[in-house]
Parts: sequence; C-alpha cells; structure tokens
Amino acid sequence: MKNLLLASTSTLYKGDYLEYLLPELELHFKDCKTVLFIPYARSGGITHEEYTTKVALAFAKINIIVKGIHEFENPIEAIEKAEGIFTGGGNTFVLVSQLYKCKVMEVLAQKLKSGTPYLGTSAGSNIAGLTMQTTNDMPIVYPQSFQTLGMIPFNLNPHYIDNDKPSNHMGETREDRIKEFHSFNSIPVLGLREGSWLEIKGEAITLKGNLKARLFRQNQDPEELESGFDLSYIK
Amino acid sequence: MKNLLLASTSTLYKGDYLEYLLPELELHFKDCKTVLFIPYARSGGITHEEYTTKVALAFAKINIIVKGIHEFENPIEAIEKAEGIFTGGGNTFVLVSQLYKCKVMEVLAQKLKSGTPYLGTSAGSNIAGLTMQTTNDMPIVYPQSFQTLGMIPFNLNPHYIDNDKPSNHMGETREDRIKEFHSFNSIPVLGLREGSWLEIKGEAITLKGNLKARLFRQNQDPEELESGFDLSYIK
Repeated sequence: MKNLLLASTSTLYKGDYLEYLLPELELHFKDCKTVLFIPYARSGGITHEEYTTKVALAFAKINIIVKGIHEFENPIEAIEKAEGIFTGGGNTFVLVSQLYKCKVMEVLAQKLKSGTPYLGTSAGSNIAGLTMQTTNDMPIVYPQSFQTLGMIPFNLNPHYIDNDKPSNHMGETREDRIKEFHSFNSIPVLGLREGSWLEIKGEAITLKGNLKARLFRQNQDPEELESGFDLSYIK
Repeated sequence: MKNLLLASTSTLYKGDYLEYLLPELELHFKDCKTVLFIPYARSGGITHEEYTTKVALAFAKINIIVKGIHEFENPIEAIEKAEGIFTGGGNTFVLVSQLYKCKVMEVLAQKLKSGTPYLGTSAGSNIAGLTMQTTNDMPIVYPQSFQTLGMIPFNLNPHYIDNDKPSNHMGETREDRIKEFHSFNSIPVLGLREGSWLEIKGEAITLKGNLKARLFRQNQDPEELESGFDLSYIK
C-alpha cells in the first residue's frame, strides 16, 4: 500500500527548512528510526554532503537519523533496505539523470509500491508523477528519459503560482506553459501551490494544507480543487 | 560570413508582432524577396499554418513574401534554397525536436555559416547558441539532443527578467536557474532582455536595442553589458 507525501515546497516564506511539515513528518515516518535521503537534485548546486547535512538537522527535530544515498556503495541496496525515503528539491533534470545513471528509478518505484513511507518536496514530488515534463526547472543536464516514478496517475507542477510575471513581460505564465504541455500531451497536471501537499495512502490521493490546487486537463478549463478533496479520480 | 539577428522577443508590451524590429528587418532582409519561416516552435500550440499566416502579415509590411517550411515536401531543400530564414518563438523543446526529426539542424547551421540572413526570436534565438539548456520553456516533448546551431560561442537566455517572482515565492529566480546551469556547465550565458537583440556579422557580435544585457559566467559575478558592445570576446 503506497504511503507518500508530495509537497510543493520544502520551505515556506520566512519558515525554516521543512518546518511547516514536521508535525506531518513525525506521523508519516513514525515507524522509522532512519530515513534515506536522495540529494541528487542538488538544490542550488550544493554538494550531496552539504544537502544531506541540512536535511539531517531538520529530521533531528523529530528524532530521525538521515543517511544520504551517496554514502552507500550500492545505491540500489540502499533503497531496498531503507525504512523511509526522502527526495529533496533542486533541479529535476539533474535528479532524473542521476536516478537513471544509478539505475534506481525502477527500484525506487517498486520500493514505494511496497509501502515504504516517502516524502518528496519540489523536484522530489515532481518525480512521483508520470513524467517530469511539467517541471519549472532549466534543462541544465540531459536525462536519458523524461519518464518518472508514476506513483500517481497524473503529473505535478510544484511551486504553482498564479501570476508569475509582471504584466509588461512577454514570456509565458505558468498557466500558459501547462496549456502548451497539453498541446502535445493528454496527462492531467495538478498545479500544487506552496503550502499544499498530497497524501497518498494506497490508491487514495488527498490534497492537504490550507490552499486549493489547480487542475489542468487537455481541452478543458482549469479547475480549482479544495483541500481535503480525494483526487484519485483524476486520470 | 554569418548574418544573424537574434532577438529576445518577437513582440514588445503593447506592440504588434515584430513591430519594433521592422526597420531593422527591412535592412537585414533587403536582398530577399522571400523569407523561409520555421514555425516548428508553434507558439502557444497554434498550427504551423496559423503561425505562418501571422508572420506573413508582419513581413508584408516590408514587402517580403513568407513561406512556411511545412509547405515544402523536402525541408532540407527548402533551407538550402532559402534567400532568408526566420525561426519564431514558442517552445524550444518542440522546436529542437522537430529540427532533429526533419534532419535539418546541421543543414540550417551550414546555411547560416554561408551568410544567409537569419532572424530568430525567443526560441528561434535560443537555438543559435551552443545548446538549448538555458531556455525558460517546459520540457513538453523529449528532443533527441540539447545541442543547437552554435552560431555564437555562448548560450542565450531570451526574455531575461530581473525580478521574476514575488518575494514570498520560494521557487528559483531566473538568475538562480542560470547559476544552477553553471554548477554543471562552463558555457557563458547572455541574459537578453525584451527589446534587446544581437547582430552577428561574420565574427562580430553586437548588442543592439536600448537595454543592457546580463552576462553570466561560471564562478564569476554576473556582469551588465552596454548596448553597442562587441560581444565576440565572450567564449
């Protein structure tokens, strides 16, 4: 039975890293003494070590020990033996490239299907969708595929934002970009605002946090979904 | 001798399509009766036909006839025989995918090296750089490579914007994203603001328009470059 939390962001404005999620994480990882951290997205270009240290400090507050996947000789075995797993944000192209290079994409999918508690934030949530094609990130490396874990039957757009440019700027809005995605793809996309997360328990998918989420479907008007809503009907 | 105009945007705020560039285009394409339009980026998901009609209307103002590359049976031949070429904006992933699918990426590079006048706007400018990896676009299709035309010895970031998010949003700024690119790549990146363009004549690269451009190099602080500056030293 799947057991995932997929958060739009790790950090809220003026908040500490993972702070707003800690009460949830304490419950979510209640049976874990340790959590395996996947730092591959390398937020801001920091090293795997630096990123893991930052995560370990946050998890120490709920008495969980964090180990980075890069500390293990065999990343496949590290995933297979993990009590709980967290993939942090950064660049989704870098994350997906590295998951494929280390041959752990499929292993991670299998492990999560078996019920191991998982937390994703930003890029780490993005990879739970069918593809990474609704990321906001720059394509700074070339991944061998855009396919991702498929833990939910749609795609996510983390850090979803309604008005993301000054009105005199001619670049695309976030909504424009997702509409463009639907010129070429039929996969539904959920725009997850900062402060929202999805809770996946088996096949149930619930929108959590105080905000609405914005659902985009091919050839349909976008829809605002309420917090608490079961989203498992979206396909 | 290369002869290219690479514009950040096709359209300025409250302006018509290509309007601000028309005086330049009249000179740039002065020896052309016809211009070949490459609509592959399909701005906003419109059809190749619709996009070409829009471009033809703008070029009619300077008495140039526009033909879309999709109207030709053989796109390679269409490029080889073109008097002038324009690649419009839209989604860079879609554009680059299609250029590779039609096997015209290398043909286009050779044609431009031979001196055929070229105009690029947005995605059409982006592909003149070494790679498309500093695009702002969503990866809505998977191109066979991120390598592009290499008409200039650096990359472009079109629609460059200084403050592209509200201060309480935790996603990356444009500058953050380009810095992340430099965690993994050493290619310089020129942030080209809307209203700026590059003029390439042989090996000379001049910044045009009224605005400064922002140069990003690996491990260096960004630099503001003045309009009129010769940028051919950037490597």
